[in-house]
Amino acid sequence: MDPDGVARAFVDHYYTTFDTNRAALVGLYQEGSMLTFEGDKFMGAAAITQKLTSLPFAACKHQVTTVDCQPSGGGGGMLVFVSGALQVGEGEHPLKFSQMFHLMPVGPGNFYVQNDMFRLNYG
Amino acid sequence: MDPDGVARAFVDHYYTTFDTNRAALVGLYQEGSMLTFEGDKFMGAAAITQKLTSLPFAACKHQVTTVDCQPSGGGGGMLVFVSGALQVGEGEHPLKFSQMFHLMPVGPGNFYVQNDMFRLNYG
Repeated sequence: MDPDGVARAFVDHYYTTFDTNRAALVGLYQEGSMLTFEGDKFMGAAAITQKLTSLPFAACKHQVTTVDCQPSGGGGGMLVFVSGALQVGEGEHPLKFSQMFHLMPVGPGNFYVQNDMFRLNYG
Repeated sequence: MDPDGVARAFVDHYYTTFDTNRAALVGLYQEGSMLTFEGDKFMGAAAITQKLTSLPFAACKHQVTTVDCQPSGGGGGMLVFVSGALQVGEGEHPLKFSQMFHLMPVGPGNFYVQNDMFRLNYG
C-alpha cells in the first residue's frame, strides 16, 4: 500500500476505535508515546488512554476532512496530519479539530503512535 | 532553552521571515525537506521556496494562536504543531490555519525543517 493509503487506513482505524471502543486505543500507544491534548501533556499508553477515556463526553463521532502524510526520516516513521470535525453529542454542533500523529513501525505495515498532538480549532 | 521555548522561538522566526522576506525561508529547508501545502507536495529547499514565494498574495501576516511541541525520537528532532490565523491583504478576513513542522538539528540550538504540512481550516 502506498504511504497515503497507509495513512488513511491508520486514520480510519484510529477514529473508528475512538468512537466505538475508546479504551482499545491503548493498543496503539507504547510506553514512550506522547500525547499533547489541548496543551496538556501525557506520556505512556496507560496515561494517554486514561486521558482519552476520561474526556467529558460519552459518545462522539469523528469526521475526517483531510489527511496528509510524509515520511518522518530514516527510521521508517510516518507523519500524519489530519483535519476534521468532532461531534460530541446528539444534535450538538460539530467542533473542528486538527491532529498530528507520528507513527513508528512495529512490523511490516504495522505502526504505533509515538507522537500525538490534538487541538480544537475555535472560532 | 527548554523545548517549548525553542519551539516558540522557531515559530516566531519562521513567520516573521515569511511575512517580511519570504525568499529567505530557503535557509530553513534542506535538499531532503518536504512541504505539503493544501495537499500539494514539494521536495527540497528550492522547490519549497518557489512554492511559498509564488503564493497568490504579496503581503501577509501570520498570527499564532497555539504552539505545541514534542521530541520526535532519538535523532534530536522536534515536532512543532501550530494553529493561527493568516491575513493576506489589508482589511481581509483572517484565514485560520494549522501547520506542523518536524525540525531536525544542524547544531546546538539550530534546526532545519525536515517536514512541513500546512492546511487552512475552512468553515
